[in-house]
Amino acid sequence: MIIIVKQDAKEERVRDLIQWIEAQNLRTHVSKGDYATIIGIIGDISKLDDDLITGLDIVEGVKHISEPFKSANRKFHPKDSIIEVGEQKLKVGHGNFALIAGPCSVESEEQIISVAKSVKAAGATMLRGGAFKPRTSPYDFQGLKADGIELLLEAKRETGLPIVTEIMNANHLPLFEDVDVIQVGARNMQNFELLKELGKTRKPILIKRGLANTIKELLMSAEYIMAGGNENVILCERGIRTFETATRNTLDLSAVTVLHELTHLPVVVDPSHATGVARYVKPMAMAAAACGADGLIIEVHNDPPHALCDGAQSLRPEQFEDVAKAVRRVRAAALGEE
Amino acid sequence: MIIIVKQDAKEERVRDLIQWIEAQNLRTHVSKGDYATIIGIIGDISKLDDDLITGLDIVEGVKHISEPFKSANRKFHPKDSIIEVGEQKLKVGHGNFALIAGPCSVESEEQIISVAKSVKAAGATMLRGGAFKPRTSPYDFQGLKADGIELLLEAKRETGLPIVTEIMNANHLPLFEDVDVIQVGARNMQNFELLKELGKTRKPILIKRGLANTIKELLMSAEYIMAGGNENVILCERGIRTFETATRNTLDLSAVTVLHELTHLPVVVDPSHATGVARYVKPMAMAAAACGADGLIIEVHNDPPHALCDGAQSLRPEQFEDVAKAVRRVRAAALGEE
Amino acid sequence: MIIIVKQDAKEERVRDLIQWIEAQNLRTHVSKGDYATIIGIIGDISKLDDDLITGLDIVEGVKHISEPFKSANRKFHPKDSIIEVGEQKLKVGHGNFALIAGPCSVESEEQIISVAKSVKAAGATMLRGGAFKPRTSPYDFQGLKADGIELLLEAKRETGLPIVTEIMNANHLPLFEDVDVIQVGARNMQNFELLKELGKTRKPILIKRGLANTIKELLMSAEYIMAGGNENVILCERGIRTFETATRNTLDLSAVTVLHELTHLPVVVDPSHATGVARYVKPMAMAAAACGADGLIIEVHNDPPHALCDGAQSLRPEQFEDVAKAVRRVRAAALGEE
Amino acid sequence: MIIIVKQDAKEERVRDLIQWIEAQNLRTHVSKGDYATIIGIIGDISKLDDDLITGLDIVEGVKHISEPFKSANRKFHPKDSIIEVGEQKLKVGHGNFALIAGPCSVESEEQIISVAKSVKAAGATMLRGGAFKPRTSPYDFQGLKADGIELLLEAKRETGLPIVTEIMNANHLPLFEDVDVIQVGARNMQNFELLKELGKTRKPILIKRGLANTIKELLMSAEYIMAGGNENVILCERGIRTFETATRNTLDLSAVTVLHELTHLPVVVDPSHATGVARYVKPMAMAAAACGADGLIIEVHNDPPHALCDGAQSLRPEQFEDVAKAVRRVRAAALGEE
Repeated sequence: MIIIVKQDAKEERVRDLIQWIEAQNLRTHVSKGDYATIIGIIGDISKLDDDLITGLDIVEGVKHISEPFKSANRKFHPKDSIIEVGEQKLKVGHGNFALIAGPCSVESEEQIISVAKSVKAAGATMLRGGAFKPRTSPYDFQGLKADGIELLLEAKRETGLPIVTEIMNANHLPLFEDVDVIQVGARNMQNFELLKELGKTRKPILIKRGLANTIKELLMSAEYIMAGGNENVILCERGIRTFETATRNTLDLSAVTVLHELTHLPVVVDPSHATGVARYVKPMAMAAAACGADGLIIEVHNDPPHALCDGAQSLRPEQFEDVAKAVRRVRAAALGEE
Repeated sequence: MIIIVKQDAKEERVRDLIQWIEAQNLRTHVSKGDYATIIGIIGDISKLDDDLITGLDIVEGVKHISEPFKSANRKFHPKDSIIEVGEQKLKVGHGNFALIAGPCSVESEEQIISVAKSVKAAGATMLRGGAFKPRTSPYDFQGLKADGIELLLEAKRETGLPIVTEIMNANHLPLFEDVDVIQVGARNMQNFELLKELGKTRKPILIKRGLANTIKELLMSAEYIMAGGNENVILCERGIRTFETATRNTLDLSAVTVLHELTHLPVVVDPSHATGVARYVKPMAMAAAACGADGLIIEVHNDPPHALCDGAQSLRPEQFEDVAKAVRRVRAAALGEE
Repeated sequence: MIIIVKQDAKEERVRDLIQWIEAQNLRTHVSKGDYATIIGIIGDISKLDDDLITGLDIVEGVKHISEPFKSANRKFHPKDSIIEVGEQKLKVGHGNFALIAGPCSVESEEQIISVAKSVKAAGATMLRGGAFKPRTSPYDFQGLKADGIELLLEAKRETGLPIVTEIMNANHLPLFEDVDVIQVGARNMQNFELLKELGKTRKPILIKRGLANTIKELLMSAEYIMAGGNENVILCERGIRTFETATRNTLDLSAVTVLHELTHLPVVVDPSHATGVARYVKPMAMAAAACGADGLIIEVHNDPPHALCDGAQSLRPEQFEDVAKAVRRVRAAALGEE
Repeated sequence: MIIIVKQDAKEERVRDLIQWIEAQNLRTHVSKGDYATIIGIIGDISKLDDDLITGLDIVEGVKHISEPFKSANRKFHPKDSIIEVGEQKLKVGHGNFALIAGPCSVESEEQIISVAKSVKAAGATMLRGGAFKPRTSPYDFQGLKADGIELLLEAKRETGLPIVTEIMNANHLPLFEDVDVIQVGARNMQNFELLKELGKTRKPILIKRGLANTIKELLMSAEYIMAGGNENVILCERGIRTFETATRNTLDLSAVTVLHELTHLPVVVDPSHATGVARYVKPMAMAAAACGADGLIIEVHNDPPHALCDGAQSLRPEQFEDVAKAVRRVRAAALGEE
């Protein structure tokens, strides 16, 4: 970390600052220029409060020379990570594309098995479905919970597809024993207590970017899991909150590219939640594939009475099949170059 | 809820939509105009998926006639709520102003007691201090935890000030037995599992608005707590995330006014976290008082070796005293009219 | 337009509202339901102030049944527009892909001609270059102005490439006589006086989305040009301002899809300005091609002393060639399906 | 300006960078530390492209030691500026509070004179009114234009109140000869060509912050005017665009404080446009006064047939009077301290 001290700072106050830093068992290296004084700090800066120093009236700014994420950092692990999912050790990352599909909520045995079979036939490599549902309103349906997980496991037995489902409470972990990938939703991205508990497992964790979280904060949340010893982390871009209201959120596809530069972890994209509109899912899925995403997570429903739902964010199985084909074509073309 | 159907929608598809709604035990009331068809829905719409309907290609839009929050809604409770805190039943709301002050983190007995005494002398009505700290990095100091709460209780015994401290995990609730106000941090505003557990207690809960959460979402999170039976909720505006970087967050003071219109719950403002800069705390505290906030939560430190910290977000006790006086003057002037 | 009146509105006030609307030569159609009263408004609502009505305390909300953009609206022009550029009538839109490349600023004859030749060889269909530069600081280089346009015209004579350059002041229009496409920059997207003047020409106008402007506002700005009689408008997505700082702006690729749904005008994407980083241009260009953009506008420089600039937002000609190839492959794959 | 070079940058490339900088007539001062290499740049950096350097893969970051605004900078003009308005040399800034009020649009002689008289009686020090109206839609009413200015001048003759009205096109400047304060609207904040022309006049300019513009960009736009020789600039905060939809924009009151720190220019606040709702104007006006704003600009209408408009953003004259009194009380209380 370096501190840039203002030109007009009084020497005495700069000296106080240096002493205070050194009192915290850190070494400093001061370089006085004509233009500014730079204080380099050497040692374990993890207890140093950035905001506190930035706010000092004698400080122009603070700059981190090394990123605060270690385990997730590509600098220290230049090779792409490959995450292995389920008993069949399905690979995700480094050219292994994950096509995850399924309904928003698990509703019944018939529903989930029917969707599972049709998305498998269309090329999905994993089945997703919500059992515990984070709902903005306490009065809204909160999911089938344990029963929903049972139904997902039933669908897994029927189709062989590994299953992905969201956790909202570390106390529920025993229910997730046979779940293949545990999802952390956007609202829980900085639920650090939950992340720590997931760090103690060895399950693959799919962690979604929070609606107002930066790319670096997503990496720090991955770091929470990895710091606990669980290196099986898959990142997910699912749209951020902006002023634009034409789509539910704004899908930030440059995040895929930036993440690939900063980390070795695989990055998947959720075009269904990002746009909130079924007819936007296909173009955004193709765009994600084109810019190098390691996978997609797409909502597919299969409920005849819902057949009116041309809209919303869920695709019908035959629409998903069309998306899957297009994504394969685009991926091949995008990779064709290297 | 009403659904506005597009002018050019095929009759058959509109009929399908109506049937699907009615199949969910809801009644509909259709009004065909020259300009649009409106479907009014009567009944318990809590299981109805808004996004799904909005996304239908035949739907122009969906409009909720009644707000989804009930217990927090001023319509059903026109009078301001007064929350009673601690054994002394300190009142917050409806003209009872809460001046909450204390350090970011509890560090030592000496520190917390010294700060407690000085903020009390300056007019603080409650003591705040972090024992469990939500930190973006797993490598950063995470607080003194249970020991921090012990020290806060010690300070309470010394000064009589009720204490406010943050919870991050419902499993820690037993440690909060003697805490007077439990704080839910911005990152946990939509940790619904935590909110549900807090709804089972009868403790006052101070819930902070998430960085990217709307005012309505804050109310829905309050509703989670109240739906469990705990009506002792205090809302807190602490800045939202925008493109502006001159302050850490953008303090949204109009939220105070909007919240007072929508809900009967008290609203306090945290100018320290919102701005991240100590010298901006005073003007923002005065502004919050002027627009009717029911309290302030302000960071104050009292650590001689930190004396260099003119900046950052913490005030020194003598600065806090100056803020407290100014706030009292401004409040009196703002109220002078009614 | 329909107005949804609150359930508890007093009849007298609703009557006042209806009278006030009718006093403005509009007809109303009132539909009273159990749930809400809907006032439909028929006639020319262009003078009606939305915000004023929305703000009334008896009004739940206002909903436009028809979009406020007419000439740009796909509803009234279902077929894709094809814009013809330059004497050679180069087509843009409806499957005709525009690959626009060139330096940020025109610097010298040697520079612009060299870049023009190399981007042409790599497959560019138009040459871009800044002559009038909008700079945040009055002290920064403001472009070669008239001389810059001269140099662009020289490059056009040499290579035959139509040229695209930005206008900042309608008084400069005479200088743009031989320019093929006039660009309106993001900062001038709502400079309505400029738009009106451009509406009087018949030149193709490439209008960039403002950093904080919605998709609908971009369409309204296009409408300003078209309302003047100039239907040759090309829209450009170039990133919006969000809290994320890893890229200069956040490229909103879903805007391409949404725009294609709402309008018949071609939509091009500027990955250079959106990301601000040369090494992110290729993946974002491929993503834009995959989701159906009608063209790309990419910064390419060719200045040997600048050879150190691996970074920044400009590509070297050989890098641009690589991007152009990848984009062609991805486009073919994306279209392969229909 | 200093450049922080990455630890692992190859020496050769760092040398290239230094040579390139020096080739632009700048001197460098290199300081190699254990932790990073810092290149200080001395000389006129106005032609140096920040983004280009930031984007280099060997560069960790760029930091400006001196702000890019000069004339507006408090460092070089520590005393508050006082702007003198109109023939009566009405003072704004440094304790001289501007209370600007009037209708959104000038509609008729009767209207503007009636509003002018009533706001004057209530304590307004200037009259505002829109003659040229920036409207999102080309089909919406664009104001009375030259006639509107005539009516404002009539109201000025009647009441003696200096007038404030918006300019949208530098070619209209002759019409503004007798206007006392020329307003630049939010959408034109970065219409640099307009700003340059206003810099040639000596009229007070009230410039509003753009919806997506940072505080520093607002200062750079003020700098455009001042660089032309016109130092009579008044800044205006009027809300920024965020994800929150409960208010039209999000009023950023901390901007007032930050601006007072960075610049000597007066800062006024527009609570009417920021919130878009009349009943939020009073609390936000009081908050602005409490945090030190140098004035307010408030919409007031006086049209009996509009009497139904309890809402929207305009106040009735009697409501404005109430706001004016409350603001005076709060200002006195806020200042009572220093």
